[in-house]
Amino acid sequence: MKTAYLILLSFLVQTVCSFSSAVAEPLPSWNSNKTKRTLVEFVESTTTPGSKKFLEPSDRIAVFDNDGTLWAEQPVYFQALFIFDRIKQLAPKHPEWKTEEPFASVLRDDYKSALAGGKESLLKMTMATHAGLTTEDFHGIVKQWIDSAKHPKTSRPYTEMIYKPMLELLEYLRDNGFKTFIVSGGGIEFMRPWVEKVYGIPPEQVIGSSIETKYEVKNGTPSLVRLAELNFIDDKAGKPVGINQHIGRRPVLAFGNSDGDFEMLEWTTAGKGPRLGVLIHHTDSKREWAYDRKSHIGKLERGLDEAKTRNWLIVDMKRDWEEVFLPDNG
Amino acid sequence: MKTAYLILLSFLVQTVCSFSSAVAEPLPSWNSNKTKRTLVEFVESTTTPGSKKFLEPSDRIAVFDNDGTLWAEQPVYFQALFIFDRIKQLAPKHPEWKTEEPFASVLRDDYKSALAGGKESLLKMTMATHAGLTTEDFHGIVKQWIDSAKHPKTSRPYTEMIYKPMLELLEYLRDNGFKTFIVSGGGIEFMRPWVEKVYGIPPEQVIGSSIETKYEVKNGTPSLVRLAELNFIDDKAGKPVGINQHIGRRPVLAFGNSDGDFEMLEWTTAGKGPRLGVLIHHTDSKREWAYDRKSHIGKLERGLDEAKTRNWLIVDMKRDWEEVFLPDNG
Repeated sequence: MKTAYLILLSFLVQTVCSFSSAVAEPLPSWNSNKTKRTLVEFVESTTTPGSKKFLEPSDRIAVFDNDGTLWAEQPVYFQALFIFDRIKQLAPKHPEWKTEEPFASVLRDDYKSALAGGKESLLKMTMATHAGLTTEDFHGIVKQWIDSAKHPKTSRPYTEMIYKPMLELLEYLRDNGFKTFIVSGGGIEFMRPWVEKVYGIPPEQVIGSSIETKYEVKNGTPSLVRLAELNFIDDKAGKPVGINQHIGRRPVLAFGNSDGDFEMLEWTTAGKGPRLGVLIHHTDSKREWAYDRKSHIGKLERGLDEAKTRNWLIVDMKRDWEEVFLPDNG
Repeated sequence: MKTAYLILLSFLVQTVCSFSSAVAEPLPSWNSNKTKRTLVEFVESTTTPGSKKFLEPSDRIAVFDNDGTLWAEQPVYFQALFIFDRIKQLAPKHPEWKTEEPFASVLRDDYKSALAGGKESLLKMTMATHAGLTTEDFHGIVKQWIDSAKHPKTSRPYTEMIYKPMLELLEYLRDNGFKTFIVSGGGIEFMRPWVEKVYGIPPEQVIGSSIETKYEVKNGTPSLVRLAELNFIDDKAGKPVGINQHIGRRPVLAFGNSDGDFEMLEWTTAGKGPRLGVLIHHTDSKREWAYDRKSHIGKLERGLDEAKTRNWLIVDMKRDWEEVFLPDNG
């Protein structure tokens, strides 16, 4: 009698489980079309036991660019906006900035001129705002900024400028045993304070650009001090290098949106077995922004030219996404 | 009636579970003494909901040195023995090595002379054997070596020269929601090919010393080429730096065995909340080796002097370990 109930119970549990997974259609913010089908088919074929394309859980490594792939990157990278805000905050301690470029331009709210100096200007501003303090202090500053700053165009918190379809994709992949990593040209320590809460990606799964740090013990208290010296640029050909340094194996899935992600997709999709490279194409000037070949941010040219021959999937934001951003909580 | 059975079933399951966990005493190769009690109490107090010392699963980060902490390191670091074997293997392609030091000494089996040149000699030998090939080729070479090479004294495979009590500890921690990382002065790519199988630690949770790599595309095939240039030394004050680079948060548990691990334990135990630093003291000349202050490998002096005032736990191998190595499968 008891055995009969146990069998019944086991049957009920199985039925309920398969029923609920059949009902909960994955990726609800993705329109039901070929793009979505390609993503779902990749996941199903690589995770169904017995499938020819089955991947062991340890091989299910998925990497995501951040700027323009998981959250927006217009009118400029959000980290640049953090830098501008930080320069203004630090200005009282730096009277010389009133006449020193690129700081003077930032203090006049002329961000275009501040960025006109290219890489050199950006590096100067990065070092002035990111170095000379401990990792823990920097972490606190980033956290305070991300919790309070608002996007200049939408007036929404930056953590609401993330793409709902991509968040669903991250969760869908994790539900299917994939380990999700961020591989961004942005600063590793600029992302770590908030990405776990926002994307569900822990700090140890974040790869990014970095400056040098130095271990110091003062009055018996150890700290890691951030130095005004570049350590690693996690962009273009640096992305596969960063992936190897941090992950130590080749991903099977790579998501990017610009030519800065080209080598990451190339490296990922050149491996053996099932692979998928995906480019998010910004085509929606109404709900987001529309840009590619001629953009000063997130330029996408080679990727568009070669996606077809390389069998990479292009996500057309306007066509493929039913929703773009998270609902407005403000 | 059905409900009654369900309640009974639930009660039975609970009883069986608590009974089996009471029976399965953790860390069976550790003698039942104060050392073991300290370890078990740390884990129980940080993982029991409601405990004052409770740590969220995301904070349960445990770091382990490798050489002398997870596996043996005598008569010299096993990676040095890999280097010697590799030099012999490559010698036919390098006739100049017959007269060029330190290679000439290695080819005469005079390892002591080969290592007498200190860091410079070691670096020369490392670059000659670790660089100039792709990451995937190097991975294959390490795998072949670890699968076939034998320890010069015990004639056992190196992967059987790992400490059974530490393997139990790794599993015990993971069973309790801790994420386990290796933080070794050894080469990151020398460890990654085998540590997942041996320790259950995946490549992305391995931190070590490294040389530079470069992304290259030849005839359409991308690869990462290993360059004869140092990238990072993960030793002493480098260990907290490496931990920050890879993990991005401060561990709560750190295990080492030499003064090369001092800063890692210092950094770990200086954080807020429950923390534990542990040093494995090699005291067993019969079953393993006995060495500390005067050893050329794994020198432990400052750690022994300061462990008491810093409240670090010393594991006395002879006293605390009922077994040392894995059973001999040969």
